[in-house]
Amino acid sequence: MNTMVRVDWRASFSLAGSVVKWLTVPMLFPVALAAYYGRGLVTFLVSVAVAFAVGWALERLHGDPAKALGAREGFLMVALTWLLVSVVGAVPYLVEGWMTAYGAESTLRFPVNALFETMSGFTTTGSTVMGTISFEHHSRALLMWRQETQWLGGMGIVVLAIAILPELSVGGAQLMDAEAPGPGIEKLTPRIAETARALWGLYVGLTAVEIAGLYVFHSVGMAPEMTLYNAVAHGFTTMPTGGFSPEARSLEAFTAVVQWFVIPFMIAAGTNFALFWHFWNRDFRTVLEDVEIRGYLGAIGILTALVTGLLYATPGFAALTGALEPSLRHAAFQVASIVTTTGYASMDFNNWGNHAQYVLLFGMFVGGSAGSTGGSIKVVRWIVILKSLRRELFTTIHPEAVRPVRLGDQVIDETAVRGIHAFTALYILIFAVATLAVVVVGVPGGDLTAFEATSAVAATLGNVGPGVGLVGPMNNFLPFPRSTKLLLFFLMWIGRLEIIPVLVLLTRSYWQS
Amino acid sequence: MNTMVRVDWRASFSLAGSVVKWLTVPMLFPVALAAYYGRGLVTFLVSVAVAFAVGWALERLHGDPAKALGAREGFLMVALTWLLVSVVGAVPYLVEGWMTAYGAESTLRFPVNALFETMSGFTTTGSTVMGTISFEHHSRALLMWRQETQWLGGMGIVVLAIAILPELSVGGAQLMDAEAPGPGIEKLTPRIAETARALWGLYVGLTAVEIAGLYVFHSVGMAPEMTLYNAVAHGFTTMPTGGFSPEARSLEAFTAVVQWFVIPFMIAAGTNFALFWHFWNRDFRTVLEDVEIRGYLGAIGILTALVTGLLYATPGFAALTGALEPSLRHAAFQVASIVTTTGYASMDFNNWGNHAQYVLLFGMFVGGSAGSTGGSIKVVRWIVILKSLRRELFTTIHPEAVRPVRLGDQVIDETAVRGIHAFTALYILIFAVATLAVVVVGVPGGDLTAFEATSAVAATLGNVGPGVGLVGPMNNFLPFPRSTKLLLFFLMWIGRLEIIPVLVLLTRSYWQS
Ligand SMILES: [K+]
Ligand SMILES: [K+]
Repeated sequence: MNTMVRVDWRASFSLAGSVVKWLTVPMLFPVALAAYYGRGLVTFLVSVAVAFAVGWALERLHGDPAKALGAREGFLMVALTWLLVSVVGAVPYLVEGWMTAYGAESTLRFPVNALFETMSGFTTTGSTVMGTISFEHHSRALLMWRQETQWLGGMGIVVLAIAILPELSVGGAQLMDAEAPGPGIEKLTPRIAETARALWGLYVGLTAVEIAGLYVFHSVGMAPEMTLYNAVAHGFTTMPTGGFSPEARSLEAFTAVVQWFVIPFMIAAGTNFALFWHFWNRDFRTVLEDVEIRGYLGAIGILTALVTGLLYATPGFAALTGALEPSLRHAAFQVASIVTTTGYASMDFNNWGNHAQYVLLFGMFVGGSAGSTGGSIKVVRWIVILKSLRRELFTTIHPEAVRPVRLGDQVIDETAVRGIHAFTALYILIFAVATLAVVVVGVPGGDLTAFEATSAVAATLGNVGPGVGLVGPMNNFLPFPRSTKLLLFFLMWIGRLEIIPVLVLLTRSYWQS
Repeated sequence: MNTMVRVDWRASFSLAGSVVKWLTVPMLFPVALAAYYGRGLVTFLVSVAVAFAVGWALERLHGDPAKALGAREGFLMVALTWLLVSVVGAVPYLVEGWMTAYGAESTLRFPVNALFETMSGFTTTGSTVMGTISFEHHSRALLMWRQETQWLGGMGIVVLAIAILPELSVGGAQLMDAEAPGPGIEKLTPRIAETARALWGLYVGLTAVEIAGLYVFHSVGMAPEMTLYNAVAHGFTTMPTGGFSPEARSLEAFTAVVQWFVIPFMIAAGTNFALFWHFWNRDFRTVLEDVEIRGYLGAIGILTALVTGLLYATPGFAALTGALEPSLRHAAFQVASIVTTTGYASMDFNNWGNHAQYVLLFGMFVGGSAGSTGGSIKVVRWIVILKSLRRELFTTIHPEAVRPVRLGDQVIDETAVRGIHAFTALYILIFAVATLAVVVVGVPGGDLTAFEATSAVAATLGNVGPGVGLVGPMNNFLPFPRSTKLLLFFLMWIGRLEIIPVLVLLTRSYWQS
């Protein structure tokens, strides 16, 4: 064994430290809001100072300048970055909770809750442990910071998904840029920094369009509650498929036109960003021939039709039965929200029938597209799995045949097929075992159903946000004991990073040889 | 494409017809019982005649004598055999239901129910659609026939699992004899017929020992309800991991000593039969070094400890809380029953907490050992998957490394690893989509929970038997609409045959080229 190759962990810490240091820049936005609204200024000045100090200190851990960064340092850096920003990003919750009079009742003043909420933010999960979401007990600056963590997390994810993970060949992620045929982003802008700038341009642009649109509805009187604050707040959490809202009732708080307007933005957020790039460059053929986008839109379409039918036809859902527009709207909104892993709610689907709720749980495992901010297993992996299963049936009859798995006119490398099967098996196994743990631990004094526990795990591991029942869209994850919250914290983290970059850190061969 | 290779479907029908014809021999046992108890003689004489006529007619469809049977004919033959015996084996239910006065209220008089019950029998699933299980509305001969279908199905399965499927390389089944190192059964008795005889010898022997043991308890007064009829009836459904019982309350109807006595027989039934062969030949080293048996017993042990703790410690289960022996007994019994996919119940676990019920659902996916009569995914597949996931983490760090998956000191062929991943993915996908269908269709006038639907699908696809709630161990599958029953009928069938032999029949390449 070659024991000379060692992980340059200092380099990884140093890079993650840089990210933490740069967190001070977006923190200036809540600083400005705090100054404007006259609440929370000290909180955020303290937080800026902490972030800068921690980031600066970590950055000092220079790696070996003679060594290039390798895959191992990449894994550690990615895992550390999300962990460290979640720790440092939790500071505002803790400071406001302990240092201000109005924040004294915030459930986020407890460290485990603050960490949960921040990880939920930066991983764009959107599961919450806030007891009450209100401006009474939280400053407007703090609630906007909560929204902003998701927007920042989303910026990290587009780069991670399109530029970093494919380089590291994680769970078949090599597909995710190869997937865009012709001159892909990777080839147009060879360096990660340039790729990142191109993607961030798209991301910022789409966010701006959504905020502008939402505010126009407000200005013309079609969305009274959609103030500029709310428009920005929801603009911050749609493109990253985040799902946090400063409104306790999520998108139910707004008019039907707002709900309709948000649907295409959620769907766009779950689309491979490389396709926007092609679209922008008028390469429509590539977009139209993309295999994943068809599967993705097809899945949303079929599940929407199914839920619409269930809501429209099943007696008992007083407000929806026999009402076509609301049935269609809530079905389309909720299916898009769940499949893209955004997690907004246009109504409390806890009041739906078991069948419609199960369709949503099913949708949680579909996930968004590769190369998007969406989480979970993702459509392209399902397509490759289905094609490999067809291949398996074929080779059972023709054992001598060598038949590759194809995506469009592209042959998928067997290593990628194997990686996708391994990733999906790992995902399902972690889901099943974690559900077992959550249901066995239960909730104090309550009776947690298997369906609730299942949905809580699927919603955190898949970075979806809300589950059903106890953890339904108008409820929260507060009732869980601390051990369960820490488990779900871990699930959000590994789910967001496509599991493998974190799990490899736990193997002996990562640190040795 | 070579279109000369065609499926010799006549050969497959002819072989399946032979099996149907030979069904008349075991039908003589209920004939004898009917004569003895004076009820059901005409029913079974008619049934014998039908089975003989159908079998004889099908047998006439001689295949091409110049052609050897190939893999394709094997798949068709296996699928057809289970389908045809389930159709012909349903005749007694229909005849007694329509032709006798006492049978007029049997729910099995309806064809879909009769087919469901017979498929549940021959696949050793044990899910029932009998409205009331009683000697009032059914002859003793008929209820014994129901038990016997499972015993016959089990005989078919040991041969299928050890001699036929490995030859057809289905879903990694090639492991299942390779798994037995040293001079395996396959090598000791080269021809399938001889292998079958050796396995059946073990199977009959273990059944006889159990029946004798049960009846001894009765004779010495330790099991008043375990009459000779009941001893035979339960002997018929333990070794095939079947789970049918002529008692409406299953094993709850018997004393604690009977419940303890049945546990090791269930565990034996879920053990690779090749290991018994080695044991019989005093090759203890092979048994002790077997990887699967350790995982299998380990899984049962861990889940039993978990359920014991939950039953013992959770307030609310009046009869069990704080009572160690009953907690341990019911936990061990129920975990063994579910993991081995037997499906007996020692009490109504519908009254357990959600957590303990979820542990059972989890256990349904573990399954028995390869080469046993147990169903579901099976322990050896999970071991190979876990090892391949470790390998995946290793090669993520060392992309250049070539590392085979090992089981003990044996290297697993990559085709087998791929087959196992494909099988498991197929299993989980079919499970998820079928659950979606079952929950969407629902039950008339009822509110089917997602957990109930999940358990119903897992219990039929995995050939376990009972689920939870509506389909709990003291309830039945009767409330489902006909479409759902037919879906579950299909699931029992494909689950029993390891899915692939049936699905390949639905591909174009099976019939062409
Ligand atoms: K989300
Ligand atoms: K069974």
